[in-house]
Amino acid sequence: MTKQLLPIADETRSLDPADWTEFRALAHRMLDVSLDYAEGVRDRPVWTPVPDEVKQALTEALPIEPQGTEKVCDDFVRLVLPYATGNTHPRFFGWVHGSGTPGAIIAETFAAAMNANLGGRDHGAIYVERQVVDWCRELFDFPDTASGLVVSGTSMATFIALTTARYAKAGYDVRHQGVQAEEYKLVGYSSEEAHSCIARTFDYMGIGQDALRVVPVDDHYRMDTAALRGAILADIDAGHRPFCVIGAAATVNTAAMDDLLAIADICEEFGLWFHVDGAFGAVAALSEKLRPRLKGIERADSIAFDFHKWMHVQYDAAAVLIRREDLHREAFTLRREYLTAAPRGLAGGNPWPCEYGPELSRGFRALKIWFALKEHGIRRIAEKVEDNCRQAAYLAEKVEAHPELELAAPVSLNIVCFRYTAPGKSKDQLTAINGEIVMDLQEQGIAAPSTTTLKGDFAIRVNITNHRTRASDLDILVDAIVAAGRAISTGEQSTETLSR
Amino acid sequence: MTKQLLPIADETRSLDPADWTEFRALAHRMLDVSLDYAEGVRDRPVWTPVPDEVKQALTEALPIEPQGTEKVCDDFVRLVLPYATGNTHPRFFGWVHGSGTPGAIIAETFAAAMNANLGGRDHGAIYVERQVVDWCRELFDFPDTASGLVVSGTSMATFIALTTARYAKAGYDVRHQGVQAEEYKLVGYSSEEAHSCIARTFDYMGIGQDALRVVPVDDHYRMDTAALRGAILADIDAGHRPFCVIGAAATVNTAAMDDLLAIADICEEFGLWFHVDGAFGAVAALSEKLRPRLKGIERADSIAFDFHKWMHVQYDAAAVLIRREDLHREAFTLRREYLTAAPRGLAGGNPWPCEYGPELSRGFRALKIWFALKEHGIRRIAEKVEDNCRQAAYLAEKVEAHPELELAAPVSLNIVCFRYTAPGKSKDQLTAINGEIVMDLQEQGIAAPSTTTLKGDFAIRVNITNHRTRASDLDILVDAIVAAGRAISTGEQSTETLSR
Repeated sequence: MTKQLLPIADETRSLDPADWTEFRALAHRMLDVSLDYAEGVRDRPVWTPVPDEVKQALTEALPIEPQGTEKVCDDFVRLVLPYATGNTHPRFFGWVHGSGTPGAIIAETFAAAMNANLGGRDHGAIYVERQVVDWCRELFDFPDTASGLVVSGTSMATFIALTTARYAKAGYDVRHQGVQAEEYKLVGYSSEEAHSCIARTFDYMGIGQDALRVVPVDDHYRMDTAALRGAILADIDAGHRPFCVIGAAATVNTAAMDDLLAIADICEEFGLWFHVDGAFGAVAALSEKLRPRLKGIERADSIAFDFHKWMHVQYDAAAVLIRREDLHREAFTLRREYLTAAPRGLAGGNPWPCEYGPELSRGFRALKIWFALKEHGIRRIAEKVEDNCRQAAYLAEKVEAHPELELAAPVSLNIVCFRYTAPGKSKDQLTAINGEIVMDLQEQGIAAPSTTTLKGDFAIRVNITNHRTRASDLDILVDAIVAAGRAISTGEQSTETLSR
Repeated sequence: MTKQLLPIADETRSLDPADWTEFRALAHRMLDVSLDYAEGVRDRPVWTPVPDEVKQALTEALPIEPQGTEKVCDDFVRLVLPYATGNTHPRFFGWVHGSGTPGAIIAETFAAAMNANLGGRDHGAIYVERQVVDWCRELFDFPDTASGLVVSGTSMATFIALTTARYAKAGYDVRHQGVQAEEYKLVGYSSEEAHSCIARTFDYMGIGQDALRVVPVDDHYRMDTAALRGAILADIDAGHRPFCVIGAAATVNTAAMDDLLAIADICEEFGLWFHVDGAFGAVAALSEKLRPRLKGIERADSIAFDFHKWMHVQYDAAAVLIRREDLHREAFTLRREYLTAAPRGLAGGNPWPCEYGPELSRGFRALKIWFALKEHGIRRIAEKVEDNCRQAAYLAEKVEAHPELELAAPVSLNIVCFRYTAPGKSKDQLTAINGEIVMDLQEQGIAAPSTTTLKGDFAIRVNITNHRTRASDLDILVDAIVAAGRAISTGEQSTETLSR
């Protein structure tokens, strides 16, 4: 069957550069493009809309003939680089985006040169990831016997943690039997402010989103733990099987911190798996000043958190930490004959990372984490975390002091939700005005907050996970919001003239 | 609560370099390190075991104080770079690893500078990923209405495809109800040679690994489609609900290609979801000569395949393609108030990629795919795919012609399974000898095949997905295997002296 293909063609012509000297010179020029971009971040607009002609240019047909490295670089510099998300800019305040650091430009060069697959086997990259996991254990006072895995984000980390919880608590061989055949229903608990990745995970696991019980929150958007207790008892009465509680550290809307200690006690009482969604807030553990707010996290069965948010590692980079390595591995391991371990050689190095999560192909994202933590050190990163909290408090004070602005939620960490108000405007009008303000600020490239809805009311949401932000950037933000709000609400300036 | 943290510290001191000129010079030096590494790949051993002192050095405590960029680079160059997996080397033949190309060193520099999160929003990176998905559609003759997503590997792609299949075929609201409450059992089918990620996905989905029916294979390791039909009928008779069949293109052990056309017909007859696991083999679609072997793939409901294997994009990079965008999005979308779309501004650009898979944080891995496909073009990549198949046939001929070697399975694409034999040795002795051969070759840095077991017999497994491999590399491999085999089986050279 294969013989029809013989003879072998020009096999000395690999996909490597025909001229290494030329390729090297180009790579150095492009490195300067990347470094210029990183160095000049404050001088650019936060965000620039992608022009229609650029969108059009990015619809070329599948490339059959080689275009060459130089042409591809030109296309990138012209069509892609000017239209970044903006999260490296000091006035990016949208969602919860980290801002990254230039060191990653070096780290990713290294990773590309090595082209490692960290699914398994015995090679240097594996030991780098193990060190990162060791550091995670240290960070959260987890025992040496805890396991962990570097993943793309808290969504994947949550999936791994709750799949382990399902395995540990189901009470039957869930890996082989699934949950289809059981007469009792597995149920779990998180607050109404919990991140959507938790409900999504219940869906993926076949347990269903309805089996994630939604516990109400108090005035500070923290889980009502008395209500949690009641919900668990009601489910037990109904013949269901509670298996886990997810505490938020912190919530995405307002950075509210659930009472992790109270949740830990309830989990202990009922024998439930205690998972902490620490996407950005768990990083408060780096700061001696902020750490007390996380009290109870050290009792978690699992923690999910991001490096690419408040630790400023480049996207994507996160980790899951699981107290009991044995359960973690048992919940995921499956190595067939082609993945057999060997006592020596490249197939050594047991256990393999692919035994702790769903991915068998795993790039070297551990490197940029290792690189950033060593480069900057925990103390410097923690200082920036503290600065961001101070800046949030500063912004909250400015909002409270301003007659046309009102806070929409208490500020406890690094997120400030507020809105522009104008006398005589209805709720719907204020929703429209505040929505316009945010779009205008983004389109003018001044600042990039995002939006949310709290207890039914629309709000501008300013998240500060940005080591480049200064108090003066928040002054610019507030001035621009008020100016845009006045223009829009008095109709002096239409949306069309404000936007590009 | 936050006020205790005031005043804001030295906020002008970000995590950016204090001295950009110095940082820039270092980055250029490190780029040369990476380029030297890429250029000199053929001159190094394929693999070098990680020395104990290096493992020890990679157990330092969590770094509290900053070590600085230069120190971290030094540590990387000393402790990590020399101990790569080896898959960039022309004589790496283990598992199914791609070899990457140096262009990724530039592409990853760009990606690090932009630090994009492709979970959603309206920015340049999103349009790059859309173009990559468009190209995937073109590659597999999928309609314009098909959807896709760039992911880390075929494991993740399989998870997304089969979760969509579960949603599409369950017959009730599986996202909210889960599969726990149903009286009938969802079941699916793949061959006994199917990749473990499929059984794993059945586990994750709560359906359970037992619900993945294992269909036997023929002498060429292809799914027995008559047996498939029988298994489906038996399950229907038993009151279960078949929902999907997974065809392999190709299997990981021997690169056997299932009869995709026959499977497509059976899926149509019974109304089942037809998924193709095309991890490496689907790339045969790039070649006019090889494409006929994939006949039937154009009728799949979903395809999972890797860019980081036979298309030589750097790890990790893969995609899932799903014929019906509506089902794909319905199976995954869940956007809460903090992820609301806006008509303009940064929150525009609907739909968002996070509506098509489990990840909300998504790095810019689409860039290296876009970069490589444009740089090299489909024709050049396809030529290397064809070369690898010719090389596999060449190796198979050498094995068949050699009295001390025997083929362990038919060779149909790019994988050759064989073993060293010696007269008078038992099966167990041959297993031990062949295992030693592989470890010795790896430890000496000569070549890196892997191993497997076929119908109970151990085999050396040579996978050729390597654009740097030449026929002369296969000559070196065969000579080294025979030399090691003779030495080990005659006991003239012990394992200890052969290995380091």
